[in-house]
Amino acid sequence: MRRGLLLALLAGALLWGLPAGGHAAEQYTVIKNGEIPSQAGKGDTFTGTVRREHFFRPTEDAPYGVSLVTFDPGARTYWHTHPLGQRLIVTQGSGLTGTADGKVWEIKAGDVVWCPPGVKHWHGASPATAMQHLAIHGMKDGKMADWMEEVTDEQYAGRR
Amino acid sequence: MRRGLLLALLAGALLWGLPAGGHAAEQYTVIKNGEIPSQAGKGDTFTGTVRREHFFRPTEDAPYGVSLVTFDPGARTYWHTHPLGQRLIVTQGSGLTGTADGKVWEIKAGDVVWCPPGVKHWHGASPATAMQHLAIHGMKDGKMADWMEEVTDEQYAGRR
Repeated sequence: MRRGLLLALLAGALLWGLPAGGHAAEQYTVIKNGEIPSQAGKGDTFTGTVRREHFFRPTEDAPYGVSLVTFDPGARTYWHTHPLGQRLIVTQGSGLTGTADGKVWEIKAGDVVWCPPGVKHWHGASPATAMQHLAIHGMKDGKMADWMEEVTDEQYAGRR
Repeated sequence: MRRGLLLALLAGALLWGLPAGGHAAEQYTVIKNGEIPSQAGKGDTFTGTVRREHFFRPTEDAPYGVSLVTFDPGARTYWHTHPLGQRLIVTQGSGLTGTADGKVWEIKAGDVVWCPPGVKHWHGASPATAMQHLAIHGMKDGKMADWMEEVTDEQYAGRR
């Protein structure tokens, strides 16, 4: 019994140390459109109707998560920061993004955004037009974002 | 003179050690559609007509490059590997991707691909339909890809 446990722990430690290429998940992988479920954006991080598809989780070799996020008109994130920053690629529609200093930018399909680590900000759709973006972000201490308070209608409208 | 040089070196060393947030490039940045030039894919890495827009270069905090690549019908990459793997998100159209073991996959808008480090592969458009994908990849020893020989018409057609 004792020896079996030790052997299991030893095998686990060896597997843990294997290069990523030795894992079954490290095969060349094609995920077809329709295999990734759409999820509703959670109420404590988003205002309004938001849909998310999580394409990739961070791994050792590729340490960044990738999600597609679709905001209905008026929908937006809560205020938040990213420990390793975030890159957004606007894939559809028209939206807004703002930082804690009161600046608000219009963002439209084809625009790309870099949010540095620790910068408090929000992003979402325009008041009357939906917006969709890809979000790419690293993970630090198990977290890709630190969430804060809701973006008020005044902040969303750029009046603060 | 000598003291001035020493002071300059000291100041440079201090600046080098500053957290990334202290740099001008670490501001919240919105790059508008139209500000990133389209570039022709180079002849020694692509067959046929390929267009690329480089959205982001790797940085210390966000160590991955992001490019949008558009392949005209029949166009494809040469055989290549990625030292840290690559993630593809097919954004438009219909294409093909193959690995050195002779497997060829159809990929269409909305599909996502993971190519592990060191796996020899190619990707491109379908014979009669264009394909566009985002490519996300890390950099190792200054390289995001190792390029090899051209993909033959037989390999592209899946006959090998």
